[in-house]
Amino acid sequence: MGWIVEEAGFDPERVTTNGNKFMLGNGAIGYRGTLEEFTKDQLTACTFAGLYDKVGDQWREPINAPNGLSTRFIVDGEQLSLFSSEYESHHQSLNIENATFQRSTVYVASGDNRITVKSQRFVSMKHLDLILMRVQFHSSEDCEVTVQTGIDGDVWDINGPHLENYESLKRDGVIGLSAVTHELHKTVCVAEGIVWEENQFPENDVRGADTIYRSIPISCKAGTTYSFVKYVAVISGEQGDSPMESALSSVKAAMNTSYEYQLDRHELLWKRRWELTDVVIEGDKEAQFALRYSIYQLQIIAPTHSERVSIPARGLSGQVYKGAVFWDTEMFMLPFFLYTQPDIARNLVMYRVHTLEGARRKAAEYGYRGAYYAWESQDSGDDACTLFNITDVFTNRPMRTYFRDKQVHISADAAYGIWQYYEFTGDETVLLDGGAEVILECARFYYSYSYYKEEKRRYEVLDVTGPDEYHERVNNNAFTNALVKMTLEMALKCLDILKMNHRKAYDALIERLDFAEDQHNLSRMLQGLYMPQPDPLTSVIEQFDGYMRLEDVDQKTLKSRILNKNEYLGGGNGLATTTQILKQADVVLMLHLFKNLYSQEVKKANWEYYEPRTEHGSSLSSCIYALVASDIGYADWAYRYFMRTATIDLTGESKQYVGTLYIGGTHPAANGGAWMAVILGFAGIHMDQGRVCLNPSLPGGWDSITFAIQIKGQRFRLSINDIEASIHSEIGNHSAQAFVIGTEERTLEPGNGLSSRYIGKERGDGLVG
Amino acid sequence: MGWIVEEAGFDPERVTTNGNKFMLGNGAIGYRGTLEEFTKDQLTACTFAGLYDKVGDQWREPINAPNGLSTRFIVDGEQLSLFSSEYESHHQSLNIENATFQRSTVYVASGDNRITVKSQRFVSMKHLDLILMRVQFHSSEDCEVTVQTGIDGDVWDINGPHLENYESLKRDGVIGLSAVTHELHKTVCVAEGIVWEENQFPENDVRGADTIYRSIPISCKAGTTYSFVKYVAVISGEQGDSPMESALSSVKAAMNTSYEYQLDRHELLWKRRWELTDVVIEGDKEAQFALRYSIYQLQIIAPTHSERVSIPARGLSGQVYKGAVFWDTEMFMLPFFLYTQPDIARNLVMYRVHTLEGARRKAAEYGYRGAYYAWESQDSGDDACTLFNITDVFTNRPMRTYFRDKQVHISADAAYGIWQYYEFTGDETVLLDGGAEVILECARFYYSYSYYKEEKRRYEVLDVTGPDEYHERVNNNAFTNALVKMTLEMALKCLDILKMNHRKAYDALIERLDFAEDQHNLSRMLQGLYMPQPDPLTSVIEQFDGYMRLEDVDQKTLKSRILNKNEYLGGGNGLATTTQILKQADVVLMLHLFKNLYSQEVKKANWEYYEPRTEHGSSLSSCIYALVASDIGYADWAYRYFMRTATIDLTGESKQYVGTLYIGGTHPAANGGAWMAVILGFAGIHMDQGRVCLNPSLPGGWDSITFAIQIKGQRFRLSINDIEASIHSEIGNHSAQAFVIGTEERTLEPGNGLSSRYIGKERGDGLVG
Repeated sequence: MGWIVEEAGFDPERVTTNGNKFMLGNGAIGYRGTLEEFTKDQLTACTFAGLYDKVGDQWREPINAPNGLSTRFIVDGEQLSLFSSEYESHHQSLNIENATFQRSTVYVASGDNRITVKSQRFVSMKHLDLILMRVQFHSSEDCEVTVQTGIDGDVWDINGPHLENYESLKRDGVIGLSAVTHELHKTVCVAEGIVWEENQFPENDVRGADTIYRSIPISCKAGTTYSFVKYVAVISGEQGDSPMESALSSVKAAMNTSYEYQLDRHELLWKRRWELTDVVIEGDKEAQFALRYSIYQLQIIAPTHSERVSIPARGLSGQVYKGAVFWDTEMFMLPFFLYTQPDIARNLVMYRVHTLEGARRKAAEYGYRGAYYAWESQDSGDDACTLFNITDVFTNRPMRTYFRDKQVHISADAAYGIWQYYEFTGDETVLLDGGAEVILECARFYYSYSYYKEEKRRYEVLDVTGPDEYHERVNNNAFTNALVKMTLEMALKCLDILKMNHRKAYDALIERLDFAEDQHNLSRMLQGLYMPQPDPLTSVIEQFDGYMRLEDVDQKTLKSRILNKNEYLGGGNGLATTTQILKQADVVLMLHLFKNLYSQEVKKANWEYYEPRTEHGSSLSSCIYALVASDIGYADWAYRYFMRTATIDLTGESKQYVGTLYIGGTHPAANGGAWMAVILGFAGIHMDQGRVCLNPSLPGGWDSITFAIQIKGQRFRLSINDIEASIHSEIGNHSAQAFVIGTEERTLEPGNGLSSRYIGKERGDGLVG
Repeated sequence: MGWIVEEAGFDPERVTTNGNKFMLGNGAIGYRGTLEEFTKDQLTACTFAGLYDKVGDQWREPINAPNGLSTRFIVDGEQLSLFSSEYESHHQSLNIENATFQRSTVYVASGDNRITVKSQRFVSMKHLDLILMRVQFHSSEDCEVTVQTGIDGDVWDINGPHLENYESLKRDGVIGLSAVTHELHKTVCVAEGIVWEENQFPENDVRGADTIYRSIPISCKAGTTYSFVKYVAVISGEQGDSPMESALSSVKAAMNTSYEYQLDRHELLWKRRWELTDVVIEGDKEAQFALRYSIYQLQIIAPTHSERVSIPARGLSGQVYKGAVFWDTEMFMLPFFLYTQPDIARNLVMYRVHTLEGARRKAAEYGYRGAYYAWESQDSGDDACTLFNITDVFTNRPMRTYFRDKQVHISADAAYGIWQYYEFTGDETVLLDGGAEVILECARFYYSYSYYKEEKRRYEVLDVTGPDEYHERVNNNAFTNALVKMTLEMALKCLDILKMNHRKAYDALIERLDFAEDQHNLSRMLQGLYMPQPDPLTSVIEQFDGYMRLEDVDQKTLKSRILNKNEYLGGGNGLATTTQILKQADVVLMLHLFKNLYSQEVKKANWEYYEPRTEHGSSLSSCIYALVASDIGYADWAYRYFMRTATIDLTGESKQYVGTLYIGGTHPAANGGAWMAVILGFAGIHMDQGRVCLNPSLPGGWDSITFAIQIKGQRFRLSINDIEASIHSEIGNHSAQAFVIGTEERTLEPGNGLSSRYIGKERGDGLVG
């Protein structure tokens, strides 16, 4: 363990999940953890961030680039393969500290000849178009080996084929394969050069319709190691660009350095990233590893290079979920970046600024004003979510779902991200650069969406789907109403800030958006918006109007009614739809987001009510139960839910199908949730009016946690053990920062440290037997 | 034909539909058209009006009384049966003029012995608890016949057993069987006496757990006719009553008269009913018969005796649809009674007064004020409609439907019935006797139900199901909004009338209902209520918000997607739900109800748009298409839809299953629709501010129609031929009445007649090929 994910032996059943588990990436491209001899049949994929394609009526989804790492060995006329060849051992590992993937396989060829193949690869964090792989092999006996290495353009597509008009070339020893996307005619290029480390070998070119390979026959001497490095560039370009030229020169430039040189640069950047983000847990190696692995997964998909892409719900692990960006980013991943790498956080939130026009189009399409963000957002911000998003397993017919139409909280999520970034960093430019416009347009959308109930003198938010997607089209979902209220507040605060600090921009914005009347509308609506309250007797907040009247069935009974293991529990005739069973944290998520607004009693009552009724059909659920469990002192429950969240991509035990739809891949929201469970949960950190509050409650067995955070451009190093929290303000910081440890408020000057004993939460473990 | 429904031969496949087709009844009890030797296996039923029972969690439904007509013949030790015995001929008929049922069967017994069994029966219109049957038989050879006749308490129950604690008795030759209902412990009694017409025969009593029979062995002489009359009384009573005593004395009293005497009294009443209701069509015997048959069906189920029962959607033809009263009564049957027998109409509308408390409970249950009438109403007015009203054929699981929750137009329908009665009769007592309260409470319910859309400055009616049940939970259904508006108007007019004419009652009502503020609310809402308008380009009125964006598929394509012939096309995953295919007239029904508010152009455009998209999955649909087709001059279409409506219970070709649910039975709404199609459609009669307007358009081939109507207590006789309408005001009428024939207004004094040539509608037959 430590920093290494490893697996010995080869299990064909694990090829798919290992593709996720051993992933590499740099935010611009992701490369699945498959072996270099694998093809699309093993779901090999080199996935672009932010590049999408649509074929016919099929789903629009990201493009997988041709595989520039493709390499196979032919010994005595037979291709070595873990599926069909005899092998003595196989071992593969991922080093999450420096983001390298290694494999080592010993095949048994004819006679007793052991052929050992090793490789190491990394997706450069320095040059975002570069992937490097070093391949080494030797045999125990003299033999004839043919190495075939090149670019495989026969890529894995779910709703493709996305690439057409393939062209291959070879120039100065560098090979290239280009293709054009079906919908937008963008060019996708992969160039590859190889450098043998000891000898040179003559090679033959082998070209297919969508492949270009070098075929290199070698008379191997027993015991001699042969090795070469592949330098691969993966680039896309608009019509009229010359991406192939860029790819070729990128490869050539890299070839003029060395594998070690590039790896050094790569490792250096990873070292810096870990300095910013690592969380050291003393006393629980398993938790330590799972958390680091979660952070690793977030780092390989974080866009450092662009504010026009955000993080898809399945990261860069392929085309699942259409490569679309959901609310997952703002609500489950953003806190990690906000506290550790606000520059990346800015990219993520600015993505919503760049997709505002799509959100306006969606609002208008449904007859509303303002901005209704895409439930499944891609490059343009238009909604990739289809109206029939699930297939009914009983009839094999498309099922009408309301994810796209009714999950209106997405606009609040988008606005919240921007606001959170502003609050954490104090960076008003994000508001001036379009963030304010997004927030105002989202608030306007909610005014346009909601209704006034005259009889009750209140505004209501009707016909929505909250986080619990098993209950579509409900009225006054407590979570959604709370987020609508928050959006109204943010919009009004935002206007105040602009008016105070940027009067010209304020005037221009109000005029351009014709917002004067809506400003009054928002104020009035904020006063009158209905917020479901805790029941006076039970303290439970009803998830939506009428929830409590649904069948209160236990999960075991519900599951006994299932007729097909892949049947969708929500939707028109779903088994959960008519019951109180919920897919994921809904009211409880609200209690996390607005933790200061609710008493411990209310939080406990709701956690206890909803927890047994939650099916956790979403990977977004467990971390929220962990967070609120921490908050209310249910430490054992918090730990259990944290571990479930933190290990999801290590065990691969998540839901793989909904209806007939494959939904496997990585789970960045759960990865972000794991980080939140530790920092916001166990360390109990939250921001309150500019002060950093700590309310720690470490799991039993944990000696300490140590980590760094950034607040308004200043860095702090925190270490928390069972009784004491220590904080150090970095010497480069510019001003004093207030901290509240437990109930004690302290101010910390730059370069100084403080320690404070805290009183742990009263432990009550609720339902734990 | 003429007045006789007949069928020769015996087809076991037609036993169920013949049970409907040959029905007898008198509004208090219905007796299915089965043969006297039949049992529950052939769906024999003697169904009470207004008496319901519920067992466990099953559906509450009407009670079938023990069968007092049960009679079987045993010849040479074998029971004669059309299913198993050899027979030479079988013939059965229903005379709709005097409401008698006849059968005649010639069985072939051992050797060449022909046994002829004949019977005639009627359900007395004079004594509503009485059923009489005369049985005659003879044989062609001497033989031993045992007649078994008595009371069969082993009744057909869909969701029973409803009867328990059976007791039988025999007193003074009269036998009786009583039982107690499961839920409310009401007593159900059947008494029976027989009188032989020539000889007396000794009899043995045969009693079973739920049966009591007389067994009468007879040595039959060849060629001698033996005959007896059964006098049967069917009575129910509350706990503590002595219904058995009533039943016994009812039978005895009848036995002291004769079959002929009772038949005379019965026929006399039927003659009177036909005088009031017959429509004579010259030139089209088929239409003449179908219309008379429809009127017959309405007469046998009309409650002349009570204002606490109304007409169930399947009449008194059994337990189908829970014996519940739907909107069918007010919207499809009431016009017939209003124009012909306003005393019965009063009973029907007063039923809503007596069930107001149930409607208040339903409104409160859903969090609204006012009266939300039951979608499926029984004795108490509580809703018998279940939340899971259909079974999914693919999973055999109950399917959540929203008939009960969302078909809010039912309250307007109930209020409309009362108001219509008031307008037709001028009888203000119906308002004072509770009708006004119903109308006010329904209007209040709509205010409580609706929302204000501030942005659009209008009230909207959200989340409803209109007549087209394939589209549940829609917003601003044009039909529903129109009915809500009408209800607001009725409520305000009603208040004006009471204030003007009955000031004390007005003050008391306003105070009792605490209605002062709501009176203002209703006025304001009436001003601001959103009414979907015809599209400026197409003149089509969108059925509900977003309807036009649904898939515009043709019916053939839709039906090609059907996987199971009984699958429900509506509901969560229904095939029609996501398309523009509608179950039944919806916008077009609105155009009928408010025909004066829409231009011919709008009516034509909507009829043409919706007609090809209407699946007519409800028997309420065709008559409305006939009516509007008449209105717009599409005479051929009108005739086609009229005949479809008028023959539904003659052909038995209606939908028999929805999901796994049997929905067969009679179709009184279609029967009422057939009458409407002729009188309101072809004759083009409607009321406009106290004037009777005629706008005739007879189908091709019809020479004339002649009929009577009653308006405000005055009777008029109308005769319309191709060019002229003649009207006669009865001599007993009290005042002048205004008529408008075409565009000509005429006033008719009591005892006088008038004739007026009219200009027929311009004929355009739209889509007819």
